[in-house]
Amino acid sequence: MFKGKKIGRPRGTRDFMPNEMIRRRFVMEKIQRVFENYGFDEIETPAFERWDVLAAKCGEEIREQIYKFEDRGGRLLGLRFDLTVPLARLVASNPTIPKPFKRYCISRVWRYEEPQSGRFREFWQADADVIGSDKMDADVEVLAVAADCLKALGFTDFTFRLSNRKILDGFVKIASIPESKTLDVFRAFDKLDKIGLSGVRKELSRRGISQESSEVLLASISLKGVGEIPEEARKLLRGIKVADEGLNELGEILEKTADYAIAGKFIVDFSLVRGLDYYTGPIYEIVVRAEKNVGSVAGGGRYDNLIALYGGGPSPATGISLGIERIVEIMKDEGMFNQPKTLVKLFVSTVDESVQKDALAIAKRSREAGISTEVDLMGRRLTKQLEHADSKGIPYVLVVGPEEVQRGKFRLKLMETREEREVTVDELMQMLSCGK
Amino acid sequence: MFKGKKIGRPRGTRDFMPNEMIRRRFVMEKIQRVFENYGFDEIETPAFERWDVLAAKCGEEIREQIYKFEDRGGRLLGLRFDLTVPLARLVASNPTIPKPFKRYCISRVWRYEEPQSGRFREFWQADADVIGSDKMDADVEVLAVAADCLKALGFTDFTFRLSNRKILDGFVKIASIPESKTLDVFRAFDKLDKIGLSGVRKELSRRGISQESSEVLLASISLKGVGEIPEEARKLLRGIKVADEGLNELGEILEKTADYAIAGKFIVDFSLVRGLDYYTGPIYEIVVRAEKNVGSVAGGGRYDNLIALYGGGPSPATGISLGIERIVEIMKDEGMFNQPKTLVKLFVSTVDESVQKDALAIAKRSREAGISTEVDLMGRRLTKQLEHADSKGIPYVLVVGPEEVQRGKFRLKLMETREEREVTVDELMQMLSCGK
Repeated sequence: MFKGKKIGRPRGTRDFMPNEMIRRRFVMEKIQRVFENYGFDEIETPAFERWDVLAAKCGEEIREQIYKFEDRGGRLLGLRFDLTVPLARLVASNPTIPKPFKRYCISRVWRYEEPQSGRFREFWQADADVIGSDKMDADVEVLAVAADCLKALGFTDFTFRLSNRKILDGFVKIASIPESKTLDVFRAFDKLDKIGLSGVRKELSRRGISQESSEVLLASISLKGVGEIPEEARKLLRGIKVADEGLNELGEILEKTADYAIAGKFIVDFSLVRGLDYYTGPIYEIVVRAEKNVGSVAGGGRYDNLIALYGGGPSPATGISLGIERIVEIMKDEGMFNQPKTLVKLFVSTVDESVQKDALAIAKRSREAGISTEVDLMGRRLTKQLEHADSKGIPYVLVVGPEEVQRGKFRLKLMETREEREVTVDELMQMLSCGK
Repeated sequence: MFKGKKIGRPRGTRDFMPNEMIRRRFVMEKIQRVFENYGFDEIETPAFERWDVLAAKCGEEIREQIYKFEDRGGRLLGLRFDLTVPLARLVASNPTIPKPFKRYCISRVWRYEEPQSGRFREFWQADADVIGSDKMDADVEVLAVAADCLKALGFTDFTFRLSNRKILDGFVKIASIPESKTLDVFRAFDKLDKIGLSGVRKELSRRGISQESSEVLLASISLKGVGEIPEEARKLLRGIKVADEGLNELGEILEKTADYAIAGKFIVDFSLVRGLDYYTGPIYEIVVRAEKNVGSVAGGGRYDNLIALYGGGPSPATGISLGIERIVEIMKDEGMFNQPKTLVKLFVSTVDESVQKDALAIAKRSREAGISTEVDLMGRRLTKQLEHADSKGIPYVLVVGPEEVQRGKFRLKLMETREEREVTVDELMQMLSCGK
């Protein structure tokens, strides 16, 4: 029925072949170990949620990107677009979880975006969140854990971009924009990287913000400070209560990064808004290779109202999300991977069918010793077996023939150097186990 | 907006809390290691596929169970219902993959079934498949790898149920049923466990099979043999070519299980049909605790035509799928888990805020040593911190106060025994690193 047609994957999705999976596993397992070292516990939630749960606080842009469907019972569902909303829903419906609830989750999410380099419709996030603490220690810890993940992967140079929704609320106020339009303004600013300054100006005007207000806003969000809050921002915001809180939070985070021994450059950057509607306080992004302009590899912030929104008690919360795809792509570009083509170590080849049992017995032993081992499953001639091992990148091939079985000594081919050795099975086991 | 309402998950799905995830990770990592030991390479494919790809060869029952949706571009998609169809699609569109292509995948799939004990709408499968070999060695290897997975998890007693679609084709023939109705017949038989003999009789009659044919069929599929093909079946099938092939395949599998050192009881059982339309030859299931009637924990078979169906060259293929949920449930019931409540090992508590920096420095060291460590993020008093550590099941708590910092000696509480010791940070690191 599909004859002659090329059957593709759905647009914006990918298959991960073995050599790519080895790299992805490496990245995800490193991150998992660091999350666990910081005492985060793993949870997993369903791939889809009730539509109203997803749509409640994601913002209009993402709402359009949710894969939405009805199940056969007529329930409106959607594929999750992040791991934060399902976490908030879970905490809201499990009020007895001991707090702080520190959870991690490394899993996939979906957004119907226009696919482009490094952006896919199915992608993986690695999230660490602290639920139940309103202290900035929680925010600093999630920054620390994300930075340590990147360090564990071999990154040495990161920049933290820090902002705070409360300070942005203050800017909206001094621009004389009604509070009801705050989220509109944030959504417009969030597109700054994509549509540029003139685009943001148009967007703000489209949303009914006066030109004067727009200019005040644009002037404030362009304020930046390295390692400290720009004095100009403090002056502008004097006397605005909500902004004061934000400034204190930001100040505390900057101060505590030293206690938490987070290395990196800290940029206070009010043009950082983040697209999701659920943020309430500190927001942050981590950029690697800032000079290359590849965008952030991690981002997050505080969402103190989301759990209450889903019917839970008031529960402060903060967290960070690492983007697996972007990290993998940058590591590839920078030559940071050193993974083998295959994890298979040994191919036990057979000269003829008479020694298949012997080959299987050797394979059994090496598998029991934890050595990844293949045998011929195709009934191929020896040369074909060797070619296969070579093309897969298997480093060792043992040759089993009737004579070898009799003598208890086998030829071992070291495929990379084309060297050959004679070994007993015991010697082989010792050799390959050591190399593990 | 959700005030006062309890927000649930979509029906038939689950959240996995930390203690459950520790068990699931244990199971999935054990299986992954065994798959890798046998030289299977990991791949991953998208959660959804084109609808026509999914629907082509799954059988009508499963077709009804696929979560189906249109993306915003109007493409008809569905959530994958197994990991085999995406694999076949991948191999068909990547014809240059070296063969045999041995791949594993441990991931989730979805079916809209009526939820019941141990059956969910979202569930995880662990699959190992061999693509490119028509030899029964490939089938025996996937049986061996599945059995070794179960052994690695602590199971000691399994039964293999073996059948073959070609033999079943033979039975259909001798019952004088037209070939075009073969799949109908298989689908009816597949429901035997659910609807019983009388149900199957009704189903066959509904599908236009005469009573006489039905009885001939029911007599043949009730034939069983322990460790061998029942003589009665051989007699019945004499001279029917397709069945002959099936009998040879089945005989070879039974013989080779010894070479592959697979331990277990082998039952030839022609009532095993398996629900999917894509099977073409050997089919099998593994049952643990057969006396408890909990159903199979693994199942699979050969699907030699599926890759060609998706436009690939002719490519024989066989594979097995372990059901993570069922394995976890049985292991729980049988008390086979011995996992801790949390992976966190150490809580570094603080007597007051003045020593926070010192506590963080100690936590940094222990995290660097690979010891999972928590610190207080709530600004709580010491007693509250101890209560939290206790309720989470963290085994060690270090007490950091100003005096302790001065002396360089700290109280270490062993939470299980309520024992206390005085330790330096060096001693602590050595103690907990050893215990790893």
